Amino acid sequence: MTDDRLYHVDGDLVPASEASVSVDDRGFRYGDAAFETLRAYGGEIFEWKRHANRLEATCETLSLEHGLSADDLRSRIDETLAANDLADAYVRLSITRGVQPGKLTPQLEVDPTVVIYVKPLPRGGLAGESVWEGPATVETVTTRKIPDAALPSSAKTHNYLNGILARTELSADADEALLFDADDCVAEGATSNLFFVRDGVLHTPSTDGPVLPGITREIVLELAADAGSSTRTGAYELEDVLEADEAFLTNRTWELRPIERIDGREVGTGPVTARLSRLYDEHVEQSCYR
Amino acid sequence: MTDDRLYHVDGDLVPASEASVSVDDRGFRYGDAAFETLRAYGGEIFEWKRHANRLEATCETLSLEHGLSADDLRSRIDETLAANDLADAYVRLSITRGVQPGKLTPQLEVDPTVVIYVKPLPRGGLAGESVWEGPATVETVTTRKIPDAALPSSAKTHNYLNGILARTELSADADEALLFDADDCVAEGATSNLFFVRDGVLHTPSTDGPVLPGITREIVLELAADAGSSTRTGAYELEDVLEADEAFLTNRTWELRPIERIDGREVGTGPVTARLSRLYDEHVEQSCYR
Repeated sequence: MTDDRLYHVDGDLVPASEASVSVDDRGFRYGDAAFETLRAYGGEIFEWKRHANRLEATCETLSLEHGLSADDLRSRIDETLAANDLADAYVRLSITRGVQPGKLTPQLEVDPTVVIYVKPLPRGGLAGESVWEGPATVETVTTRKIPDAALPSSAKTHNYLNGILARTELSADADEALLFDADDCVAEGATSNLFFVRDGVLHTPSTDGPVLPGITREIVLELAADAGSSTRTGAYELEDVLEADEAFLTNRTWELRPIERIDGREVGTGPVTARLSRLYDEHVEQSCYR
Repeated sequence: MTDDRLYHVDGDLVPASEASVSVDDRGFRYGDAAFETLRAYGGEIFEWKRHANRLEATCETLSLEHGLSADDLRSRIDETLAANDLADAYVRLSITRGVQPGKLTPQLEVDPTVVIYVKPLPRGGLAGESVWEGPATVETVTTRKIPDAALPSSAKTHNYLNGILARTELSADADEALLFDADDCVAEGATSNLFFVRDGVLHTPSTDGPVLPGITREIVLELAADAGSSTRTGAYELEDVLEADEAFLTNRTWELRPIERIDGREVGTGPVTARLSRLYDEHVEQSCYR
């Protein structure tokens, strides 16, 4: 992990191996920070506007007024990609509440810490190889999603232990944990949204539940609707997914990843997943390779 | 905050202003870390064994096998206090899962990051002044405690946004937020446990609910029982607390802090709180000033 890449920390490009934050930074002490996982395709940040909007929403939830414009953040990302000579890359952008006197209650005056991480990530999609090795093996876990009333799932923050506890429950050959909400409905994976297809209709758990409004999720729903497919969001039981004709996971790096089995029961892929994957790849092409 | 104090980071004493962790440390990226807040009285760590045990329990919850003995950690703390010439101090000990390849799923092989923070904290207690300025003004908040099924409340971790969101709801003159659990029972404060006295009986929410097993809480319950007082733990509604004769908060730094009012309604202190505060002070004396 500590090769010759450069990260961007508080305005400066620094070798990844030396990139650090103060131990008094609230991002470290409390996970008091917002982040986004982005992808660059051909040197272009995919769907930047949606990421900038969600980041803003997270910061609003945290009452974190960092005072940085989306353009400023974007140019730091572009600078980092250029400095690393990266065209196809994973990018993570974190904004913390910075160092404040040692009290849990945040102060309004914020000197934020901004960190941009990059690493090469193959293109995938229409032309290249996928970033995942094969369809996902999924297991349900006993760790429940945190209810929105305790920590809104729409906020992408450095508080990720809920997903980590879920992942530590998995067997060695499983790729993703499937979490239930407090009402025993399926919510999402530790780092992915869940979709399934039944009788030609595309379903995904509603963000009325504790479900991250994933940007890939959003795009897939739009692409399906644009293509005239029937889509539905709602509250679902595990049985609904197990009886599905197709199921897949989405996130920024996986894009669409078919689910092979859940708790040992086969689900698998099919024509709807294949079609949406193609539409998604075309959308990436049109957005980033014009 | 960046005076001439020394922190202890990964085995070395470093100026607080230069103490840092890698931005790739899981403690920063995910809040994937355990911590304890301790107090030194007269150069002696108060109730070290209980803290060491709870830290171990937290690490077990996180499947974080750091490989460090309690003695090793203790000697790092003692070294830090000595280097700062501190006898009465606030101490924070953090252990993170360190840097691992960029995946959420933790790897078993851990090179932990250990950070020890210290700062002067007046003695308080029998002889000195209290660390708080007066009794606490408390407000109930809409942010709910995270259920144990999502993140066990017995684990003290760097995922503290739940408490931060609660604190951001407070008016300017409030000292602590009171959180409810999913069943509308009172749970605890953002950084404190709740006690109340009714008809001579000492009550505190049970750790069967999402309540941190606070060490001060534990000691107060023991002192009360030893003194022949009637104590009870259970599930309580806000009304139970509002109608109490006395109420107070506990944590490592506040020790016992009376509650003046909750949501504007007076609660106040009384003979039971006063007696327990004295017993607590005597316990500190006996433990640390022998």
